[in-house]
Amino acid sequence: MRVVKFPDKAEWAGLLERPHRDAEELREVVNAVLNDIKVKGDEAVKEYELRFDKVALDSLQVSENEMLEAESLVSDELRNALVLAHENIEKFHSSQKFDGKKVETAPGVFCWQKSVAIEKVGLYIPGGTAPLFSTVLMLATPAKIAGCKEIVLCTPPDRQGKVNPAILVAASIAGVSKIFKAGGVQAIGAMAYGTQSVPKVSKIFGPGNQFVMAAKQQVSLHDVAIDMPAGPSEVAVIADDMANPVFVAADLLSQAEHGVDSQVIMFTDSERLAVKVSDEVVRQLEALPRKEIAEKSLEFSKIIVVRDVNEVLDICNEYAPEHLILAVRDYMTLADKVVNAGSVFLGNYSCESAGDYASGTNHTLPTSGYAKAYSGVNLDSFCRKITFQELTADGIRSIGKAVEVMAENECLHAHKNAMTVRINSL
Amino acid sequence: MRVVKFPDKAEWAGLLERPHRDAEELREVVNAVLNDIKVKGDEAVKEYELRFDKVALDSLQVSENEMLEAESLVSDELRNALVLAHENIEKFHSSQKFDGKKVETAPGVFCWQKSVAIEKVGLYIPGGTAPLFSTVLMLATPAKIAGCKEIVLCTPPDRQGKVNPAILVAASIAGVSKIFKAGGVQAIGAMAYGTQSVPKVSKIFGPGNQFVMAAKQQVSLHDVAIDMPAGPSEVAVIADDMANPVFVAADLLSQAEHGVDSQVIMFTDSERLAVKVSDEVVRQLEALPRKEIAEKSLEFSKIIVVRDVNEVLDICNEYAPEHLILAVRDYMTLADKVVNAGSVFLGNYSCESAGDYASGTNHTLPTSGYAKAYSGVNLDSFCRKITFQELTADGIRSIGKAVEVMAENECLHAHKNAMTVRINSL
Repeated sequence: MRVVKFPDKAEWAGLLERPHRDAEELREVVNAVLNDIKVKGDEAVKEYELRFDKVALDSLQVSENEMLEAESLVSDELRNALVLAHENIEKFHSSQKFDGKKVETAPGVFCWQKSVAIEKVGLYIPGGTAPLFSTVLMLATPAKIAGCKEIVLCTPPDRQGKVNPAILVAASIAGVSKIFKAGGVQAIGAMAYGTQSVPKVSKIFGPGNQFVMAAKQQVSLHDVAIDMPAGPSEVAVIADDMANPVFVAADLLSQAEHGVDSQVIMFTDSERLAVKVSDEVVRQLEALPRKEIAEKSLEFSKIIVVRDVNEVLDICNEYAPEHLILAVRDYMTLADKVVNAGSVFLGNYSCESAGDYASGTNHTLPTSGYAKAYSGVNLDSFCRKITFQELTADGIRSIGKAVEVMAENECLHAHKNAMTVRINSL
Repeated sequence: MRVVKFPDKAEWAGLLERPHRDAEELREVVNAVLNDIKVKGDEAVKEYELRFDKVALDSLQVSENEMLEAESLVSDELRNALVLAHENIEKFHSSQKFDGKKVETAPGVFCWQKSVAIEKVGLYIPGGTAPLFSTVLMLATPAKIAGCKEIVLCTPPDRQGKVNPAILVAASIAGVSKIFKAGGVQAIGAMAYGTQSVPKVSKIFGPGNQFVMAAKQQVSLHDVAIDMPAGPSEVAVIADDMANPVFVAADLLSQAEHGVDSQVIMFTDSERLAVKVSDEVVRQLEALPRKEIAEKSLEFSKIIVVRDVNEVLDICNEYAPEHLILAVRDYMTLADKVVNAGSVFLGNYSCESAGDYASGTNHTLPTSGYAKAYSGVNLDSFCRKITFQELTADGIRSIGKAVEVMAENECLHAHKNAMTVRINSL
């Protein structure tokens, strides 16, 4: 890893620059597929499955039998791990339940919020080399806790038309209603518009390649909400001389193996640690099956040596990392200063993998600096807060005059009149 | 108003159809302006102000002197109304403050959320015939409570280069940091990219015409978050024979006067009420300064007579109105069944104008059926929930094995190793 020592503040922005991915370049090709799905429904989904996933599907929905078969294909060890992870995710997300307080803002004026689940949600789970069953748990578990009535999942099948059994078992544990064999843009289109077999949903969640992301953005312009925009995964580690170089190196590599465009960065005030971590990364890299991917993403990764780790928080907040590990002595003090980050991991034992899988926090988090404006997925992501208000005659006396004056000054006389007729009735 | 009696369920969707507005049609013209702002900053903003708002501006920022002058131009009556409205909005939105609970999901695994304000937010307030100072209160008040450090407001000036004084006074009451004279697409671009004088923000809020909406959608693809997509304003009223026809007619008209594309709909099980309301609308319409606008939007509005108002909730949830008034005897029972709506008004005294101005609830709400997936603006809209986790050695013992198993099954060996090195260290 490249070690940069004591860069000037002026250089920081350049050091932390992210690759620019422009989903708009894919706009036309993505829109063509989306339009096909809108017009032809299931037929078009099957056509694209044949073209892209090389499989001819009779039916899109995963059957009861396939669900049963999946149960028999997943080891007890993995099943137990899924159950434990689900339990922790459920505990943490259940603790996020919202109880609206009724507030009397003025005499006789009562206002409150009620959290109501989005009725139909769609989850996209990518296929490819790694079956992301952990993401199934991360999305379906809070959807179920929220009370979403229909939880639809789309994921691409393999060339035999099968879905990875661990994905099916995770879906069953977490309470997914319906699972469909569909990947890429066609899956996003199917959930956004609805087809003969895939229900139309109101919000789509989940990761995917740049085509999936572009499709999510396109459908979000008109048809559905989406969880958040997305880019390559990232970790920033702030470490001082109390950090364990073996742990830090392992954490950096666990991010680097995600993809060649993964963003990995470490800040430290200890030149000694910088050397040790750098050496450890080289040593650990050798043993990794995904060595080639990790190596590529490490080419752009940096260890930045600074004079004071406390100072680093300024630039780290500017960077707004998806994951932030604080491997420092006084991590609670530093944690208080975090303004922009998706998820924060405190101390030597809180590795990112803990949160990626089983601690209970969500792993669907804002990348590319979006942490400045977006939260990671949480229980709220599956709900809306609807406001209610009830005025009594006293309420009309409390605010009636103010409403009349404001409406008149905004030149909205019918708004004023709706209050006037009530005042006059008292 | 057109009265439709006892339509079949099959007809309901057609009766409730909304006009389709396609922001993508404006994509090219909007993108051209946005690009200009990105490249040329203030200079381009001034050019477009000259072209569209017909005013040559020396400086974009509203000065201290202009703020003082505005104070002297606003009547005590209006000022008092603004202060009262602000107080109620502040009370209700303050009650929405979030305290994250620390949860021990498994022995030694501690997870919690912390709500942190978005640092820089931008508010857009349209110009035009009606000065929307109420929207200034609705957006800036929660931003201030959340703790946003920079609250930027853009609004178009008049031909003399002045901003409506009530907008400035409302901004001052609610705690806006900086106000700029800029309207339309150029204002959205200035806040999304930042210019020499306008700070770049992380999230943009506020209403506007279709160009503003298209611009917000465009910048939301890459650069900033936005509050929500938007369409014409709407109200649905569900009324039974306890409803006051004078009140209901006034409420329908207060929505109809917004714009020619405003959506107004009433459901009732009382044919008598339908006739009375219809007559009242005609009578009240005569006295309205914005009669022409209201008349146009009423052409597309409907009174739908149904057999049972309870039954109506199904279709009303499918419609997902921005505003929903329940002028029925047993409104609390009906309120419990509301699944999709922006804001709900209960009983005879809770007119929409109350919530539009001064009850304390927010009036920036999801239109066009977006209530199925989006909340109205609330305190959360100005915050992110960042997750934190802290594992002890015990925590590693609790979930370490599960993390290893899941990572291995997802073929992410570096993820597994980050946990293994910690297990081995115990």
